[in-house]
Amino acid sequence: MARSPLHSRRQFLQYTALGGAFAGFSLPVLAAQTAPDFREILPGSMTRAGADFSNYGQPSAYEKKVIRWISANSEMTGNGVSWSPLHELQGTITPNGLHFERHHNGVPDIDPAQHELLIDGLVERPLKFTIDALKRYPQQSRISFIECGGNSNSSFRSKPIQTPAGYAHGLVSNAEWTGVAVKLLLEEAGLKPAAKWAIAEAADGASLNVSIPVDKLLDDAMLALYQNGERLRPENGYPVRLLLPGWEGIVNVKWLRQLRLQQTPAMTRDETSQYTDLMPDGTARQFSFEMAAKSLITSPSQGMTLPDNPGIYQVTGLAWSGRGKITRVEVSADGGESWVDADLQAPILDKAFTRFSLPWQWQGQYAVLQSRATDDSGYVQPSREQLIANRGRHGYYHFNAIISWEVYEDGYISHIYPD
Amino acid sequence: MARSPLHSRRQFLQYTALGGAFAGFSLPVLAAQTAPDFREILPGSMTRAGADFSNYGQPSAYEKKVIRWISANSEMTGNGVSWSPLHELQGTITPNGLHFERHHNGVPDIDPAQHELLIDGLVERPLKFTIDALKRYPQQSRISFIECGGNSNSSFRSKPIQTPAGYAHGLVSNAEWTGVAVKLLLEEAGLKPAAKWAIAEAADGASLNVSIPVDKLLDDAMLALYQNGERLRPENGYPVRLLLPGWEGIVNVKWLRQLRLQQTPAMTRDETSQYTDLMPDGTARQFSFEMAAKSLITSPSQGMTLPDNPGIYQVTGLAWSGRGKITRVEVSADGGESWVDADLQAPILDKAFTRFSLPWQWQGQYAVLQSRATDDSGYVQPSREQLIANRGRHGYYHFNAIISWEVYEDGYISHIYPD
Repeated sequence: MARSPLHSRRQFLQYTALGGAFAGFSLPVLAAQTAPDFREILPGSMTRAGADFSNYGQPSAYEKKVIRWISANSEMTGNGVSWSPLHELQGTITPNGLHFERHHNGVPDIDPAQHELLIDGLVERPLKFTIDALKRYPQQSRISFIECGGNSNSSFRSKPIQTPAGYAHGLVSNAEWTGVAVKLLLEEAGLKPAAKWAIAEAADGASLNVSIPVDKLLDDAMLALYQNGERLRPENGYPVRLLLPGWEGIVNVKWLRQLRLQQTPAMTRDETSQYTDLMPDGTARQFSFEMAAKSLITSPSQGMTLPDNPGIYQVTGLAWSGRGKITRVEVSADGGESWVDADLQAPILDKAFTRFSLPWQWQGQYAVLQSRATDDSGYVQPSREQLIANRGRHGYYHFNAIISWEVYEDGYISHIYPD
Repeated sequence: MARSPLHSRRQFLQYTALGGAFAGFSLPVLAAQTAPDFREILPGSMTRAGADFSNYGQPSAYEKKVIRWISANSEMTGNGVSWSPLHELQGTITPNGLHFERHHNGVPDIDPAQHELLIDGLVERPLKFTIDALKRYPQQSRISFIECGGNSNSSFRSKPIQTPAGYAHGLVSNAEWTGVAVKLLLEEAGLKPAAKWAIAEAADGASLNVSIPVDKLLDDAMLALYQNGERLRPENGYPVRLLLPGWEGIVNVKWLRQLRLQQTPAMTRDETSQYTDLMPDGTARQFSFEMAAKSLITSPSQGMTLPDNPGIYQVTGLAWSGRGKITRVEVSADGGESWVDADLQAPILDKAFTRFSLPWQWQGQYAVLQSRATDDSGYVQPSREQLIANRGRHGYYHFNAIISWEVYEDGYISHIYPD
């Protein structure tokens, strides 16, 4: 097998410092030697005053194509999703305006001064909280991803979907959430020993409700009030949502109005007719809350064209795991025959996006780019073949297999199933 | 001296678990025992479909008061600042719409397809970069604050200004920045040995330019292209800005069009007529780039009223240092007579906001709340008295002394100079 054309970060820096492979290949393209008259040609922006200050800023008009892509049900108002454009983003934080959406009956309009959260059922003292009251509890923050259980589900289909990376795999976003530990409020209400599940209900038109094990609520659950520093966005649960780090989106109930403690789960519509995993033997796996380790190359990715042949490209993407920290991301350019460890961006946080990257020297040959994540539980992201063997072809949720981009000789990139 | 009414986090959790001071004082106010008919009264939001999906989300209409406060020069277009509302925010990330602004002649409208960045002067190969070229270099991310050198300068005045915390001290914000290491590009251009300074110029109407030591550019400087995941906002330098972690805002040049390498600084208008520190002996301190350790209690703070007397309150705020990591934040409720260590939110990052908090049991007495930061260089935030003794009363930049909020017996909070 030929030496892999992927380079470790250290190799890349050596090449740069030595004026080697990187400079040799890419310098003429990435930067141009300049003409001496550059200073004389003043851009128009320097010849006039700019725009005024603003109370709340907006993206540049030149970035109008960087949007959430909406896939909504035309038969039911506000039922569907909008996808985060992960292929256009960098770093690890998802800006609030581009955090993915999943609603069952639209975004409710809730006056925070009127909203109340009830904790009742198997508790010593049923309690009702206003938003002002919740704001007075100790606040905690954590950077955490939320991923819809149905993210990437087009990959169960028999043919690979041809859409940009974010519009097939972008029902996942990552933000700094701030709020109150659920544990604190459950202790205040006084859990009865029989309380094993809580039924969380949203104040939306779908009356969405789901069952959540009390153990998770006592572990790391948060009543989130803030998202990236400011109050939650309406589409992310304003005025208060549940955050269950690492668990599928549906149970991170938005617009939360009630936690009712029970001995058993409620078997609600949203956890029986949906959000269960149909297995090859015809049974359905239920309460598969945890999102397993996953990764996605965001660039280069489907729909892009590599401009230089040959050329050096940065292979970069995101990895995350509902079980803990990402410990390793490997990248392959030959469809999984050989793998090279990517560089992981610090800080690596528990149940949060980790950015990986690796320089790749493309020689113009056909290539298949893949990434494979490992988390600190030792779990390794499976191939699509392995996932299908285990879960069958009729699944809809929890698709976390390796995603493959094929690079043609002309530089165009498309989605492929290599197995 | 009486036992401090401030509680360590551990004590607070004990009180909660034991149903002690916290529950005893605050339970009746923070949460109400509920009536059994709660379930029957459905909020309006559950009786109808909500709003549709959106391509780019916006804050809730109920949060319209959470804005940047504009202080602009009516004599000159786009000259002034807008303040980040730190007293309304939580966590550590500043959302892009609320990142502070400082412009000298407004926000230029720059087409990224037309923009070029020139590196010239004392280099082997003058180079010109398009934005597309910069995007192809290895990207790095870091969460970092940027603080205007003039932040908090109203505190040099003889009387304490009475405005909300963010509108006196919010010319500082914190974001995840992503871009290219300046070092990489300087190496590609080939620095000549005599190159000790770079003159960085902006493509705005003010033709803002400043001198920057090459050592900083080779250390941790970044050409930032992304801010909290998405492309820079126009008011933050779109399409490309310089990020000099920990250094005063002015040298983090926005709308960057040129780095010209020189042997000496240029002594430009922006680094001679402004952004120097007038010292007590009449001389001016120049090139005081580094922002020293500082902290600010964001809540409770000026203009707020404590609703319960007595009551337990979360004292929370932000600390940051241009020299490194925050290692300690102490809080006082008696004007600096006694101090208690606050809890620091993880992860604690280099040259980034660190959130601190501490529960405070207010007994209804007159109190003066203060916070004091220490960084990993051992530097301790000075009192205002110490800062004035060292720097005089005619300063304008680099005010980093302890900020004090006085709490009246009726719960109202105002700004005070205690010394």
